Amino acid sequence: MRDYREEALELHKRYQGKLETTSKIPVESVEDLSLVYSPGVAEPCKEIHEDEQRMYDYTMKGNTVAVITNGSAVLGLGDIGAKASLPVMEGKCMLFKSFANVNAFPLCIEANDTNNFVDIVKSVQAPFGGINLEDIKAPECFEIEEKLKKELDIPVFHDDQHGTAIVTVAGLMNALKLLNKSFSTIKVVINGAGSAGVAIVDLLLEFKVNNIIVCDSKGAIYEGREERMNEAKKRVASITNGQRETGILDDVINNADVFIGVSAAGALKVNMIKKMNTDPIVFAMANPLPEIMPEEAKDAGVAVIGTGRSDFPNQVNNVLAFPGIFKGALAVHAKEINKEMKKAAVYAIASLIEDDELRADYVIPSPFDKRVAQSVADVVSEAAVKSYATEKIVNLSSIK
Amino acid sequence: MRDYREEALELHKRYQGKLETTSKIPVESVEDLSLVYSPGVAEPCKEIHEDEQRMYDYTMKGNTVAVITNGSAVLGLGDIGAKASLPVMEGKCMLFKSFANVNAFPLCIEANDTNNFVDIVKSVQAPFGGINLEDIKAPECFEIEEKLKKELDIPVFHDDQHGTAIVTVAGLMNALKLLNKSFSTIKVVINGAGSAGVAIVDLLLEFKVNNIIVCDSKGAIYEGREERMNEAKKRVASITNGQRETGILDDVINNADVFIGVSAAGALKVNMIKKMNTDPIVFAMANPLPEIMPEEAKDAGVAVIGTGRSDFPNQVNNVLAFPGIFKGALAVHAKEINKEMKKAAVYAIASLIEDDELRADYVIPSPFDKRVAQSVADVVSEAAVKSYATEKIVNLSSIK
Repeated sequence: MRDYREEALELHKRYQGKLETTSKIPVESVEDLSLVYSPGVAEPCKEIHEDEQRMYDYTMKGNTVAVITNGSAVLGLGDIGAKASLPVMEGKCMLFKSFANVNAFPLCIEANDTNNFVDIVKSVQAPFGGINLEDIKAPECFEIEEKLKKELDIPVFHDDQHGTAIVTVAGLMNALKLLNKSFSTIKVVINGAGSAGVAIVDLLLEFKVNNIIVCDSKGAIYEGREERMNEAKKRVASITNGQRETGILDDVINNADVFIGVSAAGALKVNMIKKMNTDPIVFAMANPLPEIMPEEAKDAGVAVIGTGRSDFPNQVNNVLAFPGIFKGALAVHAKEINKEMKKAAVYAIASLIEDDELRADYVIPSPFDKRVAQSVADVVSEAAVKSYATEKIVNLSSIK
Repeated sequence: MRDYREEALELHKRYQGKLETTSKIPVESVEDLSLVYSPGVAEPCKEIHEDEQRMYDYTMKGNTVAVITNGSAVLGLGDIGAKASLPVMEGKCMLFKSFANVNAFPLCIEANDTNNFVDIVKSVQAPFGGINLEDIKAPECFEIEEKLKKELDIPVFHDDQHGTAIVTVAGLMNALKLLNKSFSTIKVVINGAGSAGVAIVDLLLEFKVNNIIVCDSKGAIYEGREERMNEAKKRVASITNGQRETGILDDVINNADVFIGVSAAGALKVNMIKKMNTDPIVFAMANPLPEIMPEEAKDAGVAVIGTGRSDFPNQVNNVLAFPGIFKGALAVHAKEINKEMKKAAVYAIASLIEDDELRADYVIPSPFDKRVAQSVADVVSEAAVKSYATEKIVNLSSIK
């Protein structure tokens, strides 16, 4: 794998970061100044003071997202803190703009605990139409997202959970189609019970997958397990593994149709693949080194393999989801990003590949497929309106 | 005065706000993505985790300012709250960019009290190289600024105080030159003991003005006054009005050389001007309607009149100060904006008008004088280095 170290440092230094703020309106005369600033600016202020919903008309709120972190689970680097996470958050904001023309700004919050973090986000959310939570470690991320969703009336979306889940399930949908298998009859083993693993479980259940087993470092999670459990894992135990299969990954992978790795390099061995059902599907998303390398997986008989890496086929890249999801949510002033909107995004991403285009190395569209963001945005807007996630009366044709 | 209402609302609505975020680097290929985002972005993160000062090398911090308010004293509208203040804050951010190419982002913070507000600002300041406090009411603004200055190692500058003071004193400096008067011998009466009034006192003292009297709604502030005092006014009483003059504005304006109004429309009457010293100087900065209209003031014998309005000569406009001040502070990674830096800005603004250009209606440069921001930035950088306000070793010639 190429070493980006020197090149990446040089690029970040040359530009002194990656994000800037710009003015939508030129300020070149006393006239301009009088309209965008004093005295003219008093008028939109008064309008909003009368009705805060008018922020969507007169301010940046309606097309701006906050990318918010506490720096507790940054990339594969772990808890490096809010300050050191800024390059990632700036990058994320760039992707919002580049892929969906959504404005985004990074907030790297230094907070003592979960409640303090939630209170701070609530206090600073006014200028934003949506909140993208980023790189917050599990299980705290679940509590933080739940509390914010309950207390805020703008969409709150933890991308490490839902973005990853949406793209993974979209890829799986196409892989199953290619192999004539169906969600309802497959056995899925997920290795990793962190933010992504738990979100993938919830989304797979939406697609009527009946047989899911999640493994963590202690093996299969089942109802009644005592060891290394937390609230999130207890919930996983209660909604998966109906047969209460026990043991380590090597045991429960027996007859699995699908392996989804959100764990660590090398976690999936060839002998495990041999125990899987015919035409096994593997999404090995550990970064930078996957649970198994694609070549090795294919040699062992894997029918479809996806990874998190851009230098292999079928990259599970969140950039396929979050830009369009927020663009679609903002377009209709959605108050949340709900299950219906996530499911719509899955179908939109999967359906960008026509049946006759489907191949083992092409079940997930390229992140640079120009159609992705708008396709996702359109169906997400539609799903938001139909699921009453927005108070705005919208003529859907007008946003396409 | 022209009615901007419909035009301003239409403009804000057409652009859906005034500020956007943009990417400094194009993202058009897998290569780009690998450098600005995963995996390349991990490198600057690791560098900053080792030494947080490297944020200035690898992130937006070094050229980005936060425009922060609680919405408690917005324009002349009063305490309309954080949400309704956003149009002003977006406008302020535009001015930073348009006048000095400094990136700025609005944070409209909903906080219960002063300590809560300070804690929140501390928690969210990581991505910023400086903090411009805006539209926060007195006397809370004094405590907030003091606490933040003490606890943060980036510049904290309440523009309603210091920006106004710097431009006012620069204009006064030129008016005195024009009229052959000097700071040390004039009597100055300031009407208004809010954020601007108090800051003007402090800056005038730096220029050795010995005779200053500040009036509020109860009249002259003097040591020992009981009525309507607060910590800020007690401090004002202890450093001004040595003769302990008492009474209302109409009394203490006797023999004043300078009237500075940061109060309300019509506060200065013709009969008061008649009591002032020869060649009286008036800065009537109440907005939108000044303490006295320029024509009326001239008819009453005022030698030099300035206002806050763009449609009259000698506009006291903060945009002459804050963009260059932050540009200069950021250029040398200043840890504060101190007295020396503020004084340097006063001289820079005043000296843009040559002696032979000085006229009664031209003692303050135009906000659109292209020389202003860089001239201010250069001297502020220099003053920061010379007053040890920065830890960075700077070759001053390199920043010009």
